[in-house]
Amino acid sequence: MSKKETLLDLLLSDPQEFVSGEEISRRLSVSRTAVWKQINKLREAGYEFEAVPHKGYRIVSKPERIDALLLVKTLKTKTIGQNLKVLDSTVSTQEEARELAEAGAPEGTLVIAEEQTGGKGRMGRKWFSPKGKGISMSVVLRPKQPMHYMPQLTLLTGVAVCRAVRRVTGVMAGMKWPNDLLVDGRKISGILLESATEDEYVRYCIAGIGISANQDHEDYPEELKPIATSLKIEKGEKIDRIQLIAAIWEEFEALYALYQQEGFAPIASLWEALSVTLGKTVNVTIASGPVTGKAEKLDPSGALLVVTEDGRRVPVFSGDVELGR
Amino acid sequence: MSKKETLLDLLLSDPQEFVSGEEISRRLSVSRTAVWKQINKLREAGYEFEAVPHKGYRIVSKPERIDALLLVKTLKTKTIGQNLKVLDSTVSTQEEARELAEAGAPEGTLVIAEEQTGGKGRMGRKWFSPKGKGISMSVVLRPKQPMHYMPQLTLLTGVAVCRAVRRVTGVMAGMKWPNDLLVDGRKISGILLESATEDEYVRYCIAGIGISANQDHEDYPEELKPIATSLKIEKGEKIDRIQLIAAIWEEFEALYALYQQEGFAPIASLWEALSVTLGKTVNVTIASGPVTGKAEKLDPSGALLVVTEDGRRVPVFSGDVELGR
Repeated sequence: MSKKETLLDLLLSDPQEFVSGEEISRRLSVSRTAVWKQINKLREAGYEFEAVPHKGYRIVSKPERIDALLLVKTLKTKTIGQNLKVLDSTVSTQEEARELAEAGAPEGTLVIAEEQTGGKGRMGRKWFSPKGKGISMSVVLRPKQPMHYMPQLTLLTGVAVCRAVRRVTGVMAGMKWPNDLLVDGRKISGILLESATEDEYVRYCIAGIGISANQDHEDYPEELKPIATSLKIEKGEKIDRIQLIAAIWEEFEALYALYQQEGFAPIASLWEALSVTLGKTVNVTIASGPVTGKAEKLDPSGALLVVTEDGRRVPVFSGDVELGR
Repeated sequence: MSKKETLLDLLLSDPQEFVSGEEISRRLSVSRTAVWKQINKLREAGYEFEAVPHKGYRIVSKPERIDALLLVKTLKTKTIGQNLKVLDSTVSTQEEARELAEAGAPEGTLVIAEEQTGGKGRMGRKWFSPKGKGISMSVVLRPKQPMHYMPQLTLLTGVAVCRAVRRVTGVMAGMKWPNDLLVDGRKISGILLESATEDEYVRYCIAGIGISANQDHEDYPEELKPIATSLKIEKGEKIDRIQLIAAIWEEFEALYALYQQEGFAPIASLWEALSVTLGKTVNVTIASGPVTGKAEKLDPSGALLVVTEDGRRVPVFSGDVELGR
């Protein structure tokens, strides 16, 4: 552990309490001058301190940007994020993670960026996220399951994000099949799983998650304002992005382990419980043409079963689902 | 068309006939000296000529290596190979094609190499092919079908190769599920489909084909000799690689069009007719453990249906099938 990390540990162990320069000096085994240098390093990283003579230092504000050090301290996972890259700006975290995966990065390698200059959603659509407010991240997975199980992993990722959002922010987001998170019909998070396969074998999979966290209403371009929202707007106060990121990957890791052991059935039940799609009339275009019907449930593969007016049960494997009543 | 191409056209239009220098000069609209220069260019590319005074030139031997020009002349396809890259040596045609695909290369872009320094088969296994004797090629596909149809495309590719091999060489190769070509139990061709997907959407797919064409028995390392064969060994004479490559992509293009129109059923029938797997006892390991049973047929998704001794019908989606009786 670096001196900076040890210091941060010390200051965050009881954030209300002051820690004296003397104690820091002792714990870090450095001179008082060196303590002051370490404190300044944290200041440069965006931390603000209250410094009171004879009492010492305490943190009054953490950096606005996602601090890798703080995330490492917060993240209670075994695999995900243990290999971590936090970037100020990148073209796309998916691209970044893909390059790492091609170079042999292990499962769980996590890329987070404050800003994506070419961030994208499904089908190459642009994903809007102003610097320092959203969450854009991608993780490298090396699942044992062959390719045709990947849709299940998409749904699993959605469940992890949805559960973490509800737990950390209290915002009751719901799942639109397959992997959009909605709040009152407005999209709050998009998920994209990209895979590289050899026949049925999955070389790697990149799970990308974009979340509208602390965007304000005025951050959105005019044309998006009527349909845009963020967790901050919904909750009425700022979200702790670090807490949310940590919760997402803790949820993900637990669900991923459950999935490896028990298969898709428990994941499907969790997804169904969070769904805003089931029971609704949906329109979707599949290979054979447009289908309208009532979204009934997931089939064992993760496809959405749609019951048409004439009673046929059509499995939908892909496509944009338009929600009706 | 370049002068070299026009000249080749002229000489190949009736290969037994001599073409006079005067006629070449007229058709290319160049001087007699320039004709001689063009002939020399073809010599450098590996063509050999008989040149007889007052009669002219005729081709007596074509280059041993795969000549892009000759392939273009031979290939009767609309899409596949219209964008063509023939390399003397590369790490792997799959890698080359993948880079082209990422850079936006259109469907049908074909990469062929005389030598692969890091050619690979399924699960990263090495693929043995000495320079100038085998066929190593990869094509960029941008299929409309979502990811879960990719196993069908693997089987389709196998059918194309098998039909072309039988037609051009007369060697009666058969299909081992999913996509190995065998002659008397010995592998003569391996096929590998790599895909890059975004959720269910296939960004692109690279179909790689390796064929043991003109390898001689002594080309193989000792440990492979008992199990190795080539089309040349089986047929007892050299194979025209250009004819075979052209035939494969013509077959492929026709089957691919059929598949887009009619779906998988006709492809499955063709595959079953070429199979050496069906009716045999097979051993295969799937997620739930090893399975032994009789390979019955393909299911509509392309999975191999195996009937176990206790009468269960198990669909096999992936894995190495070991053939028994």
